[in-house]
Amino acid sequence: MPQNYVKQMELARGMTLSALVEQYDKAGVLGAGRVGRGVRIIRHLFQSPEYLVFLALAGPMVPGGLRHIIADLIRTKRVHILVTSGANVVHDIIEAIGGHHVKGSMTVDDRELAKKQIGRAGDVFIETAAFEQLEKKVHALLGQIPEKTRIAGLSPSELLSEIGSQLDDPQSILRQAHLQSVPIFCPGILDSMLGLHLALFRQLHPLNLDELKDMKILYDRVYEAKRIGAIILGGGVPKHFALGANILRGGLDSAVQITTARDEDGSLSGAKLEEGISWGKVKATATFETVIGDATVLFPLMIGAALEQLDAH
Amino acid sequence: MPQNYVKQMELARGMTLSALVEQYDKAGVLGAGRVGRGVRIIRHLFQSPEYLVFLALAGPMVPGGLRHIIADLIRTKRVHILVTSGANVVHDIIEAIGGHHVKGSMTVDDRELAKKQIGRAGDVFIETAAFEQLEKKVHALLGQIPEKTRIAGLSPSELLSEIGSQLDDPQSILRQAHLQSVPIFCPGILDSMLGLHLALFRQLHPLNLDELKDMKILYDRVYEAKRIGAIILGGGVPKHFALGANILRGGLDSAVQITTARDEDGSLSGAKLEEGISWGKVKATATFETVIGDATVLFPLMIGAALEQLDAH
Amino acid sequence: MPQNYVKQMELARGMTLSALVEQYDKAGVLGAGRVGRGVRIIRHLFQSPEYLVFLALAGPMVPGGLRHIIADLIRTKRVHILVTSGANVVHDIIEAIGGHHVKGSMTVDDRELAKKQIGRAGDVFIETAAFEQLEKKVHALLGQIPEKTRIAGLSPSELLSEIGSQLDDPQSILRQAHLQSVPIFCPGILDSMLGLHLALFRQLHPLNLDELKDMKILYDRVYEAKRIGAIILGGGVPKHFALGANILRGGLDSAVQITTARDEDGSLSGAKLEEGISWGKVKATATFETVIGDATVLFPLMIGAALEQLDAH
Amino acid sequence: MPQNYVKQMELARGMTLSALVEQYDKAGVLGAGRVGRGVRIIRHLFQSPEYLVFLALAGPMVPGGLRHIIADLIRTKRVHILVTSGANVVHDIIEAIGGHHVKGSMTVDDRELAKKQIGRAGDVFIETAAFEQLEKKVHALLGQIPEKTRIAGLSPSELLSEIGSQLDDPQSILRQAHLQSVPIFCPGILDSMLGLHLALFRQLHPLNLDELKDMKILYDRVYEAKRIGAIILGGGVPKHFALGANILRGGLDSAVQITTARDEDGSLSGAKLEEGISWGKVKATATFETVIGDATVLFPLMIGAALEQLDAH
Repeated sequence: MPQNYVKQMELARGMTLSALVEQYDKAGVLGAGRVGRGVRIIRHLFQSPEYLVFLALAGPMVPGGLRHIIADLIRTKRVHILVTSGANVVHDIIEAIGGHHVKGSMTVDDRELAKKQIGRAGDVFIETAAFEQLEKKVHALLGQIPEKTRIAGLSPSELLSEIGSQLDDPQSILRQAHLQSVPIFCPGILDSMLGLHLALFRQLHPLNLDELKDMKILYDRVYEAKRIGAIILGGGVPKHFALGANILRGGLDSAVQITTARDEDGSLSGAKLEEGISWGKVKATATFETVIGDATVLFPLMIGAALEQLDAH
Repeated sequence: MPQNYVKQMELARGMTLSALVEQYDKAGVLGAGRVGRGVRIIRHLFQSPEYLVFLALAGPMVPGGLRHIIADLIRTKRVHILVTSGANVVHDIIEAIGGHHVKGSMTVDDRELAKKQIGRAGDVFIETAAFEQLEKKVHALLGQIPEKTRIAGLSPSELLSEIGSQLDDPQSILRQAHLQSVPIFCPGILDSMLGLHLALFRQLHPLNLDELKDMKILYDRVYEAKRIGAIILGGGVPKHFALGANILRGGLDSAVQITTARDEDGSLSGAKLEEGISWGKVKATATFETVIGDATVLFPLMIGAALEQLDAH
Repeated sequence: MPQNYVKQMELARGMTLSALVEQYDKAGVLGAGRVGRGVRIIRHLFQSPEYLVFLALAGPMVPGGLRHIIADLIRTKRVHILVTSGANVVHDIIEAIGGHHVKGSMTVDDRELAKKQIGRAGDVFIETAAFEQLEKKVHALLGQIPEKTRIAGLSPSELLSEIGSQLDDPQSILRQAHLQSVPIFCPGILDSMLGLHLALFRQLHPLNLDELKDMKILYDRVYEAKRIGAIILGGGVPKHFALGANILRGGLDSAVQITTARDEDGSLSGAKLEEGISWGKVKATATFETVIGDATVLFPLMIGAALEQLDAH
Repeated sequence: MPQNYVKQMELARGMTLSALVEQYDKAGVLGAGRVGRGVRIIRHLFQSPEYLVFLALAGPMVPGGLRHIIADLIRTKRVHILVTSGANVVHDIIEAIGGHHVKGSMTVDDRELAKKQIGRAGDVFIETAAFEQLEKKVHALLGQIPEKTRIAGLSPSELLSEIGSQLDDPQSILRQAHLQSVPIFCPGILDSMLGLHLALFRQLHPLNLDELKDMKILYDRVYEAKRIGAIILGGGVPKHFALGANILRGGLDSAVQITTARDEDGSLSGAKLEEGISWGKVKATATFETVIGDATVLFPLMIGAALEQLDAH
């Protein structure tokens, strides 16, 4: 059968993730084809030592169950730069200090939840008490940073590394990023519960947040990289930042995005990676794939399959 | 850790589909939670002998690579009634008579494809020549049906069983449905290339298509069933028909749908299964789950995981 | 300012629909641009006497408030062929015989609705009592059709014309279609409450539904048309049928679709109209536009603007 | 006819935006119902002097043609606080200094665009030359800010006001915001071409960006407000920030969001406003509406209708 025919998928009992993805690849069209090609790109990023790999996170990836998988990718040096929304940082700290996310429901009366002091993100519930713990912890952590350092100003990535150094949890993303010297860029850090507490802390104590400093830290890493790849979950500022960081060097060499957004409204969140070529965010010669779907399903499947294939080679 | 906490997923090397779905279930929220619960329902449908199981197909499931998986579910008596768009029937016949689907692209000039006589469905290409083969085959098949039978009228499910009886391919959905006495209901059969050829055949020969007869065949099956479940891929007429068939008995006992449609426009395609309760299409006591995503990715994963779990029990 | 610059939109107090659409057109990009171009196409269809105009309806267009607008387009001979899901026919009859749709809610307990005998489509409620009226009316209507006609067989369009002839309501779509000799094709008619009652009626009385006959009625209209255009609301069988009807003549000359479906899953519902070119459903030279959004908002706006512009010329 | 029946919409020739929205409201269901209720909320925000009104912008609102409408809402004191992505700020400056957005196409070879130095956002094109002008202008503007001020640190809203003061264009959002003392919060400002130039400027000159200062400016406005409302276009950081700003006072009193994102992935972008109640971002007693669709179509329609109604009262 010629290479370019759609080959009908076959299931086998006890098949592994990689075996399933092989079937997707064999069919090679629609969503299955996109997952198949996406896994090939991820495997390539992971096995090529010349690649600096970005991971961008928007949406509830930590509350949704991807925290340990992400921390492991940092620990095993698969991922070298993290760009994230403030929320994923906040939820990582919450789990690190003993807070929990709870399996909830989307069809629920939010007024009742408010009375019970439970916040909701989709069908994930979290008790407000966890945020009170967070408040105490953040203020304590900030207090331990020497006043001189706080006056001189910390960049968000420095601040997050500092926080990571003070967390015990080895499965924490911030902890592993600190240990592996993976910078965590968080361009919207003030737009989060952490940002709120930074603002409140500063009403009582000196604190300067020097976001521009992170641009230099970022560009230094980007300039010294031979090749750069990106795995992008969700859209928004993290996606935009990961792409934008590569403009000055002519764009990404390779990228996979997993997203639920579509391109018809012209938003960056929904933009296909092709669009990035026009801006020099993605190289004209790059390999890339957009996989449409829910990252809590697709990311574990795709990462699991890619790692299995790496082991097999 | 209490049962209702989101447990962060862990990947293991060489993990199987069922092991991955166990991790989804452990997290239990967002898309991963929906897939986890959906697999539990499918497993329940497959292992409970009192269940009559519908499979509804809308969208390019055969061109997208799900043909053999579906035929296998019929062959192994997991699925007992098929409801489908005309297109999936057409594409099953095309593959049975030696035609092929080709891995194409979505970013292509359709005017060029038209010149090359290639039709496109998403990134699946198919040569018009395949439809010429189909035309010959359908006219030959119809010619072999005794004129008396054609005048008395065949229902679509009878016609499709007749066609299945004349196909050699053991991996054909129509062939397996014929062998296993699984009726294929195709309420929009005339809205397909097969319908076109039925109409053209009739301009030259007697042929009556008696769709109302299928309603009786359907209701007989439904009434004698102890419990009824449904696996629904996509929306449209096949979904509506599978749900509607159960109104007269008070609704489905259990159902899973995999869909890319959303509920905000009030269409049946995007309706959550809850809505079916109000109409008596789904029982108030039913277990059901809506999984949002691409069926070419999710259906193999979910069926594979459910079958693996069945074997393990 | 050159023609091809995005001109920023300006609002004026008391501006009309056409004036707003002019602003969309001036900007000319994203959703606004698509609406602007779509209105131009609709206006062209309405003002060109050589055009045979299809209107395809999938989704809850009658429950959603578009019934009178559609009936008026038929009455004023803007639309010449209707293709619809069975549901819109059912809901048109329900309103014609005094039943009502009720403003409901999407966040409601469907188990409570079931107890109150209320069916839900999105946030539209309808009392089951209306369906009981429907049942009586349909059986009475069918009883009035001479037995000889019923044995010879009616096509769905003939049946719907017959029903239309017996309805009093001048704002009924079926009534107006009957009066204007606009055939209503309903390829999934059996997949509806009307289909259910046809099946039940037939258990007691002779009735043949001859769907193949409609193919001839359709092709006769299509072949004699100089040019053909289509306005397509939603996807599914009605869209597919309206496109498929034009294959034998080389495709539509012009079309607008308003849809909430996207193209990434390869389904016909979400396919852009370009895809139709590859199949010969749309001519390579055709003008067409896909507008993504909710038809209950966009259809009145676009039709209103097009009619206003026609009056002005 | 009882109030709660869906009343079928009627079109009238030359009808105004408000007359159309009245028809939507009469029907009162699905998208039309949501637009109808959304307009009522916007009218209420605009006519109630006790309201502090946020406008949040994510996605290409300026390139998409909404720039003058937004600037006018600021000029006429309908909107009192702006929260935006960096991109909308950048594109406002570009138009203010003579740059243009161009009507393009989504089906285009991005490699060709890259060669022609054209960037693409959906079907909006923009010449890279515009960004070179931007670079010069931003460096000149920053140079005019006294070094002492730059060392002391400007918050993003102060910086944007400073830039607005130096732009001539009365239709510029930044210009009008400066004139009307409307703060522009831009929590992801560094994630934009403006951010890039701030970083490059700082490699040569002193410049401190003090984002935490904006939190105080924001909270001061929020605390003194009697009631707060929000109009939210798109999701991401601007939506999150506008909601989050209201946590400390118990939530928004009223809000409308127009979005293309859905809630199933648990992202804040797609979250219904109800979810905000659980977090105290929206009051339990608040009136709010989520309208799903393209803001370039819906925002002009809804604002136009609301203003027309205000004039009529």
